[in-house]
Amino acid sequence: MAEKIAIIGTGLVGSGWAVVFARAGCDVALYDAGPGAAAKGREVVATQLRDLAAHGLVGEDPDTILARVRVAGDLADALDGAVYAQESTFERTDVKRQVFAEIDAVIGPDTLVGSSSSGIPASAYTDHVGCRARCLVAHPVNPPSLAPVVELVPAPWTAPETVKAVRALMERVGQAPVEMTREIEGFILNRLQGVLLMEAWRLVEEGLATAEDVDKTVSQGLGLRWAFMGPFETIDLNAPGGVADYARRLGPLYHSIAASTAEHRVWDETLIGKVEAQRREVLPEAELAARRAWRDRRLMALARHKKDAEA
Amino acid sequence: MAEKIAIIGTGLVGSGWAVVFARAGCDVALYDAGPGAAAKGREVVATQLRDLAAHGLVGEDPDTILARVRVAGDLADALDGAVYAQESTFERTDVKRQVFAEIDAVIGPDTLVGSSSSGIPASAYTDHVGCRARCLVAHPVNPPSLAPVVELVPAPWTAPETVKAVRALMERVGQAPVEMTREIEGFILNRLQGVLLMEAWRLVEEGLATAEDVDKTVSQGLGLRWAFMGPFETIDLNAPGGVADYARRLGPLYHSIAASTAEHRVWDETLIGKVEAQRREVLPEAELAARRAWRDRRLMALARHKKDAEA
Repeated sequence: MAEKIAIIGTGLVGSGWAVVFARAGCDVALYDAGPGAAAKGREVVATQLRDLAAHGLVGEDPDTILARVRVAGDLADALDGAVYAQESTFERTDVKRQVFAEIDAVIGPDTLVGSSSSGIPASAYTDHVGCRARCLVAHPVNPPSLAPVVELVPAPWTAPETVKAVRALMERVGQAPVEMTREIEGFILNRLQGVLLMEAWRLVEEGLATAEDVDKTVSQGLGLRWAFMGPFETIDLNAPGGVADYARRLGPLYHSIAASTAEHRVWDETLIGKVEAQRREVLPEAELAARRAWRDRRLMALARHKKDAEA
Repeated sequence: MAEKIAIIGTGLVGSGWAVVFARAGCDVALYDAGPGAAAKGREVVATQLRDLAAHGLVGEDPDTILARVRVAGDLADALDGAVYAQESTFERTDVKRQVFAEIDAVIGPDTLVGSSSSGIPASAYTDHVGCRARCLVAHPVNPPSLAPVVELVPAPWTAPETVKAVRALMERVGQAPVEMTREIEGFILNRLQGVLLMEAWRLVEEGLATAEDVDKTVSQGLGLRWAFMGPFETIDLNAPGGVADYARRLGPLYHSIAASTAEHRVWDETLIGKVEAQRREVLPEAELAARRAWRDRRLMALARHKKDAEA
């Protein structure tokens, strides 16, 4: 029998999750407190499934997959019999505290709950609920149907079995779960992105390079290996003796670079204006929407390429 | 008439450069001070061209391209009539100082010289030569035939026309040149890689995540967009109002993350041992070579994918 999944909050993130679970064969129930929001979310699911099918990224007819996605009558109906609920409501602590209290009031004894929270740790909005040992952060990259990583971040009271079970579920549905052992600001992904962005902005701020050339350095060089290997595997393969050899050769350089960047300037309005002006020269504001559509097509084509390369 | 290019130093990096220039239609002369080294370099070029052809990455028969690559009799012969020389000798200041003096003794009045130096700035080995206004760093990613970025870094005495002409040449031969306005340790690419690596190692050091999960966070998430867009374009498209909107929303988070990473621990032997142990569990030492071959195939397939996607 298909596993039942509840999607709580059916905006862009929640709809993306529905695609992931339905594509993998789960029965998905959508719930959103906004009137008509869940029905609208189901339309987004339909559109995303058609796009994925056009890129050969689903194994069945999109309508067959969509038939597994239903709009729930209320929160209790959505959670009824669910092995897992993915919460994707607004990123605000008070909102999430209220939502988790509502979930707690009707949740069954075996349902686990993951929050799509991109920054607020689960301890900030699950301390007050009875089911808190079954709650954790399960942070996706948007859209999860194309970028499979999911960051699992337990609160201090999250049971180890919860992390284990959610990790196994995510693997079953084709995602790539990663685990943190405890909460830390930004989790893994945004910490790595953050330090790279701080350095990128600094290079522009100090007039050492343009934003366009920094971008090219990544998209035509540094980012290529990272699209299919992580940073550790990259350096492990980049020295004859592996990662230890690499670390002994290049550790001093990187340490020296890091030491030279120890002072972190806030992105103030002057600097924001400078970067914004450089970007608008490369891409006028009127073309942002078209470029986002281009990015989505490129992500789909890349996902298809990776699927083929890994086959 | 085809442009003449001199390759000085024909190890892995120099041979990779020969592939780039010959593939683009240039006449390439190979010189290396080591006995028989240039002839061996030409064999590496032949192998690389066959591999590229197998992945649809060259427009001509590999032998036709190889016919444009010759072994020069000596340094003067290699430089004779060359519009540009790419120096790729051993990464040591004293070696490069000697090589640039030898180049200076026989170079024509119009030849420009780029060094493949990955870390030592041109000012450290071109201050003493007459042709120094025509010298700069032109740092590739290995292999340049698959990762097109080239970092152009002028010494204080490099003429602006030198940078301009080398940038134009690199674009003509299909590379992606980026410019720094002045020398800084690590240039752009290794500074960005360095700050990300320092944070990745810290996460493992503090037991927050495994090296394998950090890798997965990049290869299944963060690195996907970076394979075809840079970090600035990524955030520009990731907020409704573009990069300024994004910076105002997320700047405080990234600043806070950066501030929490201000102390930079050296990668000491204890930490190196920890990372090494985790990597060897994922990939035993005996499988390093096979995995490098896998990486090279994946890089070729990705290059082909990008070529198609950009067509």
